[in-house]
Amino acid sequence: MSDKPISRFPVPELGELPEDIRTRLLAVQEKSGFVPNVFLALAHRPAEFRAFFAYHDALMEKEGGLSKAEREMIVVATSGANNCQYCVVAHGAILRVRAKHPLVADQVATNYRKADITPRQKSMLDFAMKVALASHEVEDADFDALRQAGFADDDIWDIAAIAAFFALSNRMANFTSMRPNDEFYLMGRVPRDK
Amino acid sequence: MSDKPISRFPVPELGELPEDIRTRLLAVQEKSGFVPNVFLALAHRPAEFRAFFAYHDALMEKEGGLSKAEREMIVVATSGANNCQYCVVAHGAILRVRAKHPLVADQVATNYRKADITPRQKSMLDFAMKVALASHEVEDADFDALRQAGFADDDIWDIAAIAAFFALSNRMANFTSMRPNDEFYLMGRVPRDK
Amino acid sequence: MSDKPISRFPVPELGELPEDIRTRLLAVQEKSGFVPNVFLALAHRPAEFRAFFAYHDALMEKEGGLSKAEREMIVVATSGANNCQYCVVAHGAILRVRAKHPLVADQVATNYRKADITPRQKSMLDFAMKVALASHEVEDADFDALRQAGFADDDIWDIAAIAAFFALSNRMANFTSMRPNDEFYLMGRVPRDK
Amino acid sequence: MSDKPISRFPVPELGELPEDIRTRLLAVQEKSGFVPNVFLALAHRPAEFRAFFAYHDALMEKEGGLSKAEREMIVVATSGANNCQYCVVAHGAILRVRAKHPLVADQVATNYRKADITPRQKSMLDFAMKVALASHEVEDADFDALRQAGFADDDIWDIAAIAAFFALSNRMANFTSMRPNDEFYLMGRVPRDK
Amino acid sequence: MSDKPISRFPVPELGELPEDIRTRLLAVQEKSGFVPNVFLALAHRPAEFRAFFAYHDALMEKEGGLSKAEREMIVVATSGANNCQYCVVAHGAILRVRAKHPLVADQVATNYRKADITPRQKSMLDFAMKVALASHEVEDADFDALRQAGFADDDIWDIAAIAAFFALSNRMANFTSMRPNDEFYLMGRVPRDK
Amino acid sequence: MSDKPISRFPVPELGELPEDIRTRLLAVQEKSGFVPNVFLALAHRPAEFRAFFAYHDALMEKEGGLSKAEREMIVVATSGANNCQYCVVAHGAILRVRAKHPLVADQVATNYRKADITPRQKSMLDFAMKVALASHEVEDADFDALRQAGFADDDIWDIAAIAAFFALSNRMANFTSMRPNDEFYLMGRVPRDK
Repeated sequence: MSDKPISRFPVPELGELPEDIRTRLLAVQEKSGFVPNVFLALAHRPAEFRAFFAYHDALMEKEGGLSKAEREMIVVATSGANNCQYCVVAHGAILRVRAKHPLVADQVATNYRKADITPRQKSMLDFAMKVALASHEVEDADFDALRQAGFADDDIWDIAAIAAFFALSNRMANFTSMRPNDEFYLMGRVPRDK
Repeated sequence: MSDKPISRFPVPELGELPEDIRTRLLAVQEKSGFVPNVFLALAHRPAEFRAFFAYHDALMEKEGGLSKAEREMIVVATSGANNCQYCVVAHGAILRVRAKHPLVADQVATNYRKADITPRQKSMLDFAMKVALASHEVEDADFDALRQAGFADDDIWDIAAIAAFFALSNRMANFTSMRPNDEFYLMGRVPRDK
Repeated sequence: MSDKPISRFPVPELGELPEDIRTRLLAVQEKSGFVPNVFLALAHRPAEFRAFFAYHDALMEKEGGLSKAEREMIVVATSGANNCQYCVVAHGAILRVRAKHPLVADQVATNYRKADITPRQKSMLDFAMKVALASHEVEDADFDALRQAGFADDDIWDIAAIAAFFALSNRMANFTSMRPNDEFYLMGRVPRDK
Repeated sequence: MSDKPISRFPVPELGELPEDIRTRLLAVQEKSGFVPNVFLALAHRPAEFRAFFAYHDALMEKEGGLSKAEREMIVVATSGANNCQYCVVAHGAILRVRAKHPLVADQVATNYRKADITPRQKSMLDFAMKVALASHEVEDADFDALRQAGFADDDIWDIAAIAAFFALSNRMANFTSMRPNDEFYLMGRVPRDK
Repeated sequence: MSDKPISRFPVPELGELPEDIRTRLLAVQEKSGFVPNVFLALAHRPAEFRAFFAYHDALMEKEGGLSKAEREMIVVATSGANNCQYCVVAHGAILRVRAKHPLVADQVATNYRKADITPRQKSMLDFAMKVALASHEVEDADFDALRQAGFADDDIWDIAAIAAFFALSNRMANFTSMRPNDEFYLMGRVPRDK
Repeated sequence: MSDKPISRFPVPELGELPEDIRTRLLAVQEKSGFVPNVFLALAHRPAEFRAFFAYHDALMEKEGGLSKAEREMIVVATSGANNCQYCVVAHGAILRVRAKHPLVADQVATNYRKADITPRQKSMLDFAMKVALASHEVEDADFDALRQAGFADDDIWDIAAIAAFFALSNRMANFTSMRPNDEFYLMGRVPRDK
């Protein structure tokens, strides 16, 4: 593991953490083999940590019209637009794994218009980018276009809410100078990772 | 009360809501005399509602180096930059009340550089706006400037985290087309409101 | 009245002013109960003062297809886009009074797309914002759209000319750091003002 | 003379014009050998015409710390930034004549940073461009820099007011699609014009 | 000839140059009557010089669906958008000569939407500007529009490649502070130049 | 190999190519194990192909004060800013190999301010980004800062010229919709690639 700082702010030791947060960190370590730095960096503020991950899970782990890979596409595209190194690298890895597609994350991060995605997914990302970059210009016509592309209203909420949540997340990662774990860079890139 | 729609999405009736959410709504109604529409619009998604308000309270109701009025200044300035009608109107009202200053919200919403605020508050808003609009450009020099203006590192986190949270909140309000309650417009403007 | 400076430049005393300008100031004070600071700040330059108000009156006081409230909507929307605190506050007050609508000014200042206005007024503001922000991109198609929305060509000139005049006015207020009178903030917000 | 339309709006015949406007047109024709199209296009609205030229003359013909050539530099630089074809071509011609410099207008129109101007003039144009493009960010430090470059406060007003007036003028020319007279293109370019 | 520096970098003497580059300079001097400064400034780097002009000639001197004047229009419009003084002045001159139109270059440099060009040429410049300013947003629909305007696919490549090559050229001229030769300013403006 | 189209334009067969271009393609295939798609897509235009690669080699393969890895950093940072998928993926691979650093390309592509680079390299990229995004604002002060960071004037030319060349290259890749070869995504990421 890199010895570079992972945040501009103090990072608590596991032993210092409230029980519930330590439990979550150990669980994610068990599952992933390492603790993503976002858990460590945000643990500096336990109350915000709890709200952040409750919000994250409500949007990213739920069932619905969007697949989990599609949810990660929204994260990667909007985080690229916000120049968020942590989210592009970490969620790029998750996108590769969930989409079982080793190329799609790098494509979407730089220009989703040229990624190996479906027209429906392109409509989804067009809207997600508008929410990320100019949400005050969202109009009823945007909803009509998404409905024509086959999205239910609850899917539209999901697209926009994920873009909105990562507007928060990107800014948290950027001002703390959160460092992506080295492990993310290679995840999902080679067949045995799939 | 206006009969205009308050969201592009369905707004649940009080009776349909989960117990904890209904309790919160009744409490806020008791305290404020009305239920701000953000509670009703976000109640469409109970899990997200809970995370949103837990996050909000962790940032806006905590003790620390920033006064409650200063926290609201951050909200109003960054929401103005994001053209978020709901947040400018609703948090403008709260800012007037908390600052006991009937003019400051309208000043900050349009151009904080010319508001009746202290140089320290101007430094605070310079940084909040950078987090809101170009967080990838935040550098160590920004932290140095804030420390010189008297902010502790935990205050800096608060400033940035509030700007980041309202990056989320502004986008939620914008894509749902959330309508500010009529009550907000006049709150804190006349002496008896203070 | 606030004792804050109202301009970065010297503000003449009433007694120092040329006769015609003093007369105008006394007339507006008679009518409004106070002298809006724009009259005092611009009186530093009598020749420009006369041209400014002659231009203003030619656009804002004339008869025509646009109501006086609609003219003020254009002012408030474009002044919001230009972050002009003086014009948003002062013309926001006039808009509330002329529209007999206590909410519309704050709505239009932050995001006219979500204001309580008619579709015709939204077309009007779409065009006014284009003139304010990207006038070199105005094309014949913009005129066609306005004609379809029911505007005569002379109305179109009025919309554009008001946006153009306040492009000037906003910059004058911004570089002089013109301060809105305290009286404006509450005008038109409560029933007795209507 | 070109037979291309000079405005999207009707252009009055000389005989139709109010006496004072016709007199001004005849005077400018006498002096320049032709009537610049801005006089014809704006004559569609006599009251606005009078205010426009009164304002113009108050800023461009006055005595003061700025030379007439310097005033035209401000016009050309800011009109270039606003992509105003009429003002770049027409005032470019006047700048060449007033500066007795056949190259400076084309230089300033595209990038004043590389024009044959003095450091003092570059400071002047830095400020004029800020007023033209981001006047809400003008701060006391901008005034300090201009004072250090030798400008009196009344010169600073002139710089800013000219930039502000042409913010209006550029938008008028752009929405009317005002066409520069063919005569302007060659004025001041060859020795006999100097 | 002006004695102002023509580049921030050393400019070689003719005698110091490699044979092939000297030959090219003498040929252009023979043909034009002077050596455009781009030849002198880029000769600082012979290998890059050769590639630059080979690329330039491949795009600008070739036969095809675009006339030579149309190719220069693309240069002037995109160089205006990139604020490149050298390219606007030098290629403006070439455009005037090739189009046998003394006005078109100044028109296109400031706002091609209002230039004396055909609708086909306007479509060409719309696309060239998109390539210059937001090439990642180019989509199949842009190609369809050009085909409908009568452009073959090889013409479309030419339009885009010229815009792309001058994206390079503009940046080279800007960072070297390349100075346009005085001779360019008047070329093609008076009948005997045609 | 992917069967997705690699360009919007026809891609010539090896057998159709001019001898010198075929030789270059075979040489690069011999060295890299595959033919990068930029060679195939640009071979549609042999004269431009030759100039493009002559220019590329003159900048990227030369000796000088910048290491080959540093040259690739400039490519990756500016291509990220231009949303050029081909260049970020292909040159990201080359950067990983040349820097023998599996993480640096993804870091630089999203936000070079937070990459594992030296302060000298950060200064280099600050300038490269200014050339890429606002070259008309380059001033002598930028050169002074680079000299203080230890760069010779010829290094400064290299930094700017690489940024300028990839301004061209990014636009070529974007309008042709050039597809990065699948091979690039994994290159330099695992130890055996180093």
